[in-house]
Amino acid sequence: MASKNYYDVTEWKIGNPYEDIGEVINSIIADIKSRQTELDVNEGGKPGAVIYIPSGDYHLRTQVVIDISYLKIMGAGHGFISSSIRFNIPQNEWAELHDLWPGGSRILVDLMPEAGGEEAKGAAFYVERSGDPRISSVEFENFCIDGLHFVDDGLGKAEPENTYTNGKTGIYIAGAQDSFRITGMGFVYLEHGITIYDADALSIHDNFIAECGNCIELRGSGQASKITDNLMGAGYKGYSIFAQNFGGLLVTANNIFPRGTSSVHFDSVARSSITSNRFHSFYPGMLVFEGSCSENLVSSNHFLRDHEPWPPMQGLDNGLDDLFGLLNISGDHNSIVSNHISETIGTQYIKPEGARPVIIHVVSGKGNHISNNHIVATTETAGEQNDGAASCFSAQVGALLTTDRLAELEVTTVLVEKEAVQNTVLDSGSETQVIIDKTVNAFRGTPVPGV
Amino acid sequence: MASKNYYDVTEWKIGNPYEDIGEVINSIIADIKSRQTELDVNEGGKPGAVIYIPSGDYHLRTQVVIDISYLKIMGAGHGFISSSIRFNIPQNEWAELHDLWPGGSRILVDLMPEAGGEEAKGAAFYVERSGDPRISSVEFENFCIDGLHFVDDGLGKAEPENTYTNGKTGIYIAGAQDSFRITGMGFVYLEHGITIYDADALSIHDNFIAECGNCIELRGSGQASKITDNLMGAGYKGYSIFAQNFGGLLVTANNIFPRGTSSVHFDSVARSSITSNRFHSFYPGMLVFEGSCSENLVSSNHFLRDHEPWPPMQGLDNGLDDLFGLLNISGDHNSIVSNHISETIGTQYIKPEGARPVIIHVVSGKGNHISNNHIVATTETAGEQNDGAASCFSAQVGALLTTDRLAELEVTTVLVEKEAVQNTVLDSGSETQVIIDKTVNAFRGTPVPGV
Amino acid sequence: MASKNYYDVTEWKIGNPYEDIGEVINSIIADIKSRQTELDVNEGGKPGAVIYIPSGDYHLRTQVVIDISYLKIMGAGHGFISSSIRFNIPQNEWAELHDLWPGGSRILVDLMPEAGGEEAKGAAFYVERSGDPRISSVEFENFCIDGLHFVDDGLGKAEPENTYTNGKTGIYIAGAQDSFRITGMGFVYLEHGITIYDADALSIHDNFIAECGNCIELRGSGQASKITDNLMGAGYKGYSIFAQNFGGLLVTANNIFPRGTSSVHFDSVARSSITSNRFHSFYPGMLVFEGSCSENLVSSNHFLRDHEPWPPMQGLDNGLDDLFGLLNISGDHNSIVSNHISETIGTQYIKPEGARPVIIHVVSGKGNHISNNHIVATTETAGEQNDGAASCFSAQVGALLTTDRLAELEVTTVLVEKEAVQNTVLDSGSETQVIIDKTVNAFRGTPVPGV
Repeated sequence: MASKNYYDVTEWKIGNPYEDIGEVINSIIADIKSRQTELDVNEGGKPGAVIYIPSGDYHLRTQVVIDISYLKIMGAGHGFISSSIRFNIPQNEWAELHDLWPGGSRILVDLMPEAGGEEAKGAAFYVERSGDPRISSVEFENFCIDGLHFVDDGLGKAEPENTYTNGKTGIYIAGAQDSFRITGMGFVYLEHGITIYDADALSIHDNFIAECGNCIELRGSGQASKITDNLMGAGYKGYSIFAQNFGGLLVTANNIFPRGTSSVHFDSVARSSITSNRFHSFYPGMLVFEGSCSENLVSSNHFLRDHEPWPPMQGLDNGLDDLFGLLNISGDHNSIVSNHISETIGTQYIKPEGARPVIIHVVSGKGNHISNNHIVATTETAGEQNDGAASCFSAQVGALLTTDRLAELEVTTVLVEKEAVQNTVLDSGSETQVIIDKTVNAFRGTPVPGV
Repeated sequence: MASKNYYDVTEWKIGNPYEDIGEVINSIIADIKSRQTELDVNEGGKPGAVIYIPSGDYHLRTQVVIDISYLKIMGAGHGFISSSIRFNIPQNEWAELHDLWPGGSRILVDLMPEAGGEEAKGAAFYVERSGDPRISSVEFENFCIDGLHFVDDGLGKAEPENTYTNGKTGIYIAGAQDSFRITGMGFVYLEHGITIYDADALSIHDNFIAECGNCIELRGSGQASKITDNLMGAGYKGYSIFAQNFGGLLVTANNIFPRGTSSVHFDSVARSSITSNRFHSFYPGMLVFEGSCSENLVSSNHFLRDHEPWPPMQGLDNGLDDLFGLLNISGDHNSIVSNHISETIGTQYIKPEGARPVIIHVVSGKGNHISNNHIVATTETAGEQNDGAASCFSAQVGALLTTDRLAELEVTTVLVEKEAVQNTVLDSGSETQVIIDKTVNAFRGTPVPGV
Repeated sequence: MASKNYYDVTEWKIGNPYEDIGEVINSIIADIKSRQTELDVNEGGKPGAVIYIPSGDYHLRTQVVIDISYLKIMGAGHGFISSSIRFNIPQNEWAELHDLWPGGSRILVDLMPEAGGEEAKGAAFYVERSGDPRISSVEFENFCIDGLHFVDDGLGKAEPENTYTNGKTGIYIAGAQDSFRITGMGFVYLEHGITIYDADALSIHDNFIAECGNCIELRGSGQASKITDNLMGAGYKGYSIFAQNFGGLLVTANNIFPRGTSSVHFDSVARSSITSNRFHSFYPGMLVFEGSCSENLVSSNHFLRDHEPWPPMQGLDNGLDDLFGLLNISGDHNSIVSNHISETIGTQYIKPEGARPVIIHVVSGKGNHISNNHIVATTETAGEQNDGAASCFSAQVGALLTTDRLAELEVTTVLVEKEAVQNTVLDSGSETQVIIDKTVNAFRGTPVPGV
C-alpha cells in the first residue's frame, strides 16, 4: 500500500541519473501522468508527486519539461561554492584544492545552447502548460543547478569564465502559473538563474543564487508574489532581481551582494514593496525604476555602493556613470523612506571625472515622496583598501570595514529633474545637497549640525 | 535498529489513509504513546515522532486529536490551487480543465460539522492537553488541508461556494502550547484556517493560506510569536490575521491579498509589530485596532485598497463605509510610521455617497505617533479597469497596474477624533488633508509642492 | 543503484547512536571521505551527503568533527521545551509532568568540558578545515541540541540550573567558511548556541534558540550574511546576537525575547542592518554598538524593556544601570530611524535611584542620524504586575499587556554625549527629552501636543 507518488531518481527503472537526470525525470513525469488518468475521482485524482534527488553529481543532457501541477522536486543540499574564485585561481594550483565543484544534490547542466539561440532551449527545467487552470503549486527545493562554465562572449572585456554568459537557465517558466515555490535552492554559473513569465502568488524564499548572469527575472506580468530571505548576487551585466508589469510584489529580507548591473530593476511595476533588504553594489544604478513605476514603497533598506575590490573583476562594470544615481527613479507616487544609503569611492574612480555623484535621481514623475533617508558619502585613498588582502574574502571584508580613515565626499543626495514636478523631498539632504525646483516641488532640508 | 519514530501513513497497519487518514493518524499517535511509557529514561524517553504523508488524496472522516509534544506531521506539497476560480466556472466546462482539485499531500476534510455546532468539532486537526507542561514543539509542515466546499450560509448574499462558510477548521489548538511550528502548509476552502488559543513562541512561517473564511486567529491570549513570510488572503467576512490579548507578536514579510474583512485585526494587543508587509484589500478596515491596543508598531508596510475587480465577488464586501478608515485605530502610544498607503476607487463606489474617504482613523486613545506616511488617493473611470480582462488573473493584474490614467481623489489622510488627545501627526498629510484638534494634539503637515 | 549518499544514524553499522551519536556521525563522515577519493571526476566527485537523525534521544559523548563541504545533517523536529521552567519546579512535582525533557531529533550533549578549559572542546559539532577553498554549504536542519544542565558558576548569584553556564556549545565553526545554512534547529541549555568565526554568506534562518547563555556569536570577521526569522532569547549574562568586524550583516524578522545581556551587540560592525525585529529585554543595553560601528541601519524595530516578572530570575540582571541607555551607540554615520521603543519600569527598580533613564545613548561618534523614533516610557505600581499570575506564561503575558494603568515616566529619549559631534536628531523626543549640544549637532524636537 506504500505510496507510488514518491520517486528517487537513483532508483528509477529508466535511464541513468548520473549520465542524464533529464531523461530520468521526464520519464518519471510521464509515469505520473500515466497514472493520473481520471480528472475527478472522488474529488481528487491528480495529487502530484515528489521526485527526490539524493546528494550526488547528476549530469543533465535532456531538458526537464514540467506540465503537471503539484510536482515537488527536492534535493538534499543547495551545494553552493564559489566557482568564480576557483576559475580565477591558476589551474596548476587546482590540485591543492579540497573541492573543485559545487555539491549537494547537484545538477550539472550539460545542455549546449546555441549562441543566440532561443533562450528557453538552454533551460535545465522548463515549465509550460496551456489551457486552464494555470499550472499550480510546483515546488523546487534544496538542490543545486550548476551551469558549470561561462564562455567567451565575443565582447573582449572579460576572461571566458568571467563573462556570465553561457545561454543556460536554471528554471524557466514560460507561461502563467499559480502558487509555485522555490525554496532552499542553489544556483551557480547560469546566465539566468530563474526566469518566470506571468507569476501569481509565487514564493522565492531562502535560496542561494549567486555567480549567475541574472538571478531572478519576472517577465510578462504578475501579481501578489514574494521574493524573501534570499542570498543573491548577479554578474556585472545582469539583474539580481528584475520585474516587469508586476503588481503587489514583496521584496523583503534579502541580502543582495555584488555584482549585478542592478540589485533591483523594475520595469512598469506598481504597488510593490522593497523593504528591509541589504543591497551592496559596485556600480551606480543599484535600484532602477523604469517605464511607469508607481506607488511603490522603498523603505528600511541598506544600500552600499563601493568600488570593486577584487582584481579579476576590476575592469568590468555596468557602464553607468555617477550622475545616473544609485537609485534612478521614473514614475509617480513612489515612497522612498527611511533608507540608509552609503557610497564610498575613491575620487579617481568617479565618472565623469570630477563629477559630483548623484545618490537618488528622480528622472521623471510626480507625487514621489522621498523622506527621512540618511545618505553617507565618503572617499578613500586609492588602492589602499586592498593592501595586504590575502584573498577575495579578506579583500571584501576589509573594504566593508574600511570606514575609519575616510573623508567626506560631496554628493547630490537627491536630484529631481526638471521633468519631475509635485514631488516631496524631506529630511534627505541639506539645502546644498539637494537639487530641486522648489516652485513646483516640496522640500525640507535635513538640519545641518551647528547651523 | 532502524528508528521506530517514523511513520508513513500509507504503510501503517491500521486503517486506510485514503478513506480516513484521521483514523490512521490517531492510531499512529496511540502507538507512539504506547511506546512512551517512561517519563525519564536516561534524561529522555518521549522524543516524539514524524508522521509522513506522501503526495496523494486522503479523505479525513475522523478528527485527528493530538496530545503529545514533539509530533511532526509532514507532507510533500502544499498543493494550493484556486478552488474559488473553479467553482465560478460553469460546471459543463470542467471537463476541459487540467486540474479540478488541490493536490500535493492533500487532506480532504470530510467532516460534517453541524450548522451552529461547536466550532472545535469541525477541525481536521485538534490539539489539546491539560496539565503541565504545556504541549510543545508540534510541527505541521508542507501538506494541504482542503475544506472542499463552502455551503449556503442562509444570508442570501453569496452563491453557496462563495460564502466562505462550512464550519470547518484546518488546525485548531484549544489551549496553551509552546514553540509550535506551522511551515510550508497549504490551506484552502476552510471557514477557519488556523485557530490557536494561548500561543507562546509560535511560528507560522512561509505558508499558503487562501480562500479561507479566516486565515489565522490567535485567540485567548499569547506572547512572543511570529507570523512571517506567508501568502494569505481571507474571505470577505473573515480575518486574514486576528490576534487577541497578545503581547510581542511579530507580523512581518507577509503578502496578504484580498479579500479579508481585515488584513490584520488586533483586539487588545500590545507591544507588537506589523512591519514590512504588503497588504491588499477591497474594503475599508484593512487594519483594525480595537479594545485597548497599545504601544504597537506599524511600519514600512504597503497598503493598497481598490475595488473588487472580479465579477463573482463584486456584490460582496465587509459592510464598512469609507469613513471607517483603511486603518482604524483605538488605543494608546501606537506608532504608525513610514508606511505607503494607496487607495484607488471610482467615486461611484464611495459610501456614503459623496463622502471624503478616511485613510488613517484614530478613533480614540492618546500618545499615538503617526509620522512620515505617504498616502496616495486616486479615482478612475467606472468599469474601465476590467475591460477586456480575459480572466481573474488578468483582471487583477490589470487593476493593479492601472495607475496611469488616474485622477487625484480628495481624502482625509488622518482623522483624529475628538475623543483622542495628545497624539502626534507628522508629515502624513497636508493641513487640508488632516483633521485634528491642534490644541490637544501635535501636528506638522507634509509640505505641499509649490506652496 | 540507490544513492550511497544518504545515511540514517539508526541504521549505520558502526557505533550505537543512542549511546554516542558523535561516534556514529564521525564514522559516517569517515565513510563519505573514503568514497570521495578523486577531486575531479567528470567535473564532480565530492558532492557531500545527508546524515539523517530520526526523532529520538541520542546521547553525544564524542564531539562531531566536520571537515567536508556539502554535508547536511538533518533531523525531524527542533524539539524545544522550556527546561528553565522545569528546573524551577520542585523536583517532587516532576512525576506529575507530561514531559520532562526536550524532544524531536534530540542530541543530549554529554561532553564534560573542563571548567575554564578550551571553549571549542565543549562543542557538540565542531567544524574546521584549513587550506583552500573554504569549507562550503554545510547545512544543519531541524534537530535539537540540548546541553541538559547548567552548573554552579561559582559566582553565587544563581541556582546552578539558572547560571547559563556549562562550557557547552551547540555548533562551533572554528574558521572561514562559505554559504552555510542553519535552519529549523532547536538549541537549549547550552552556554553557547552557535559560535562562528569568519562567516561569509551565512544563513541562520527560522531557528529556535532559547535558554542558552548566548544564542549566536559571529566572531573574527565576516560579511554578507543573514540572521532572519528566528525565535531567540539568551541568558542574563550573554548575547542573543553578537557580531564582530562584520560587514553587510542583515538581522531582520527575528523575535528576540528576554533575557540576554543584549539583544544585539555589535563590536566594530559596519554597513549592516537591523530592521523589522521585535526585541524584548529586562535590562538596559538591549542594543550595543561598541568599537567602531559605522554606517549601520537600525529601522522599524520594536524595542520593549520592562522588569523581570518571573521570581526565579528576579535577582539576576546584566549589571547595567538606567543611564547606560536601552540603545548604547559608539560609532559614526549610523541610522536609527522609525523605531518604536517602549520602557515600562517601576521607579523603585531604576538604578541609580532617582535617575532619569536614558533610552538612546550616543556615547561617541559623528554623523549619526537618529530620526522619527517613537519612545514611550511608563511606570507602574510595585509588585502589581504579577498578582495572581499562575505561571511564568501568564506572568509574562500579563506584564506585556499591562499598559492601561500606567503613568508617564520621565526619560531622556536621546542623550548625545559631549564627545559626539555632527550628529542629527530629528523627531525623536521633545526639547526637554533630548540632551544634545546644538552648537555642534543638529536637532529638531518632536512637536509637543497642545504646545
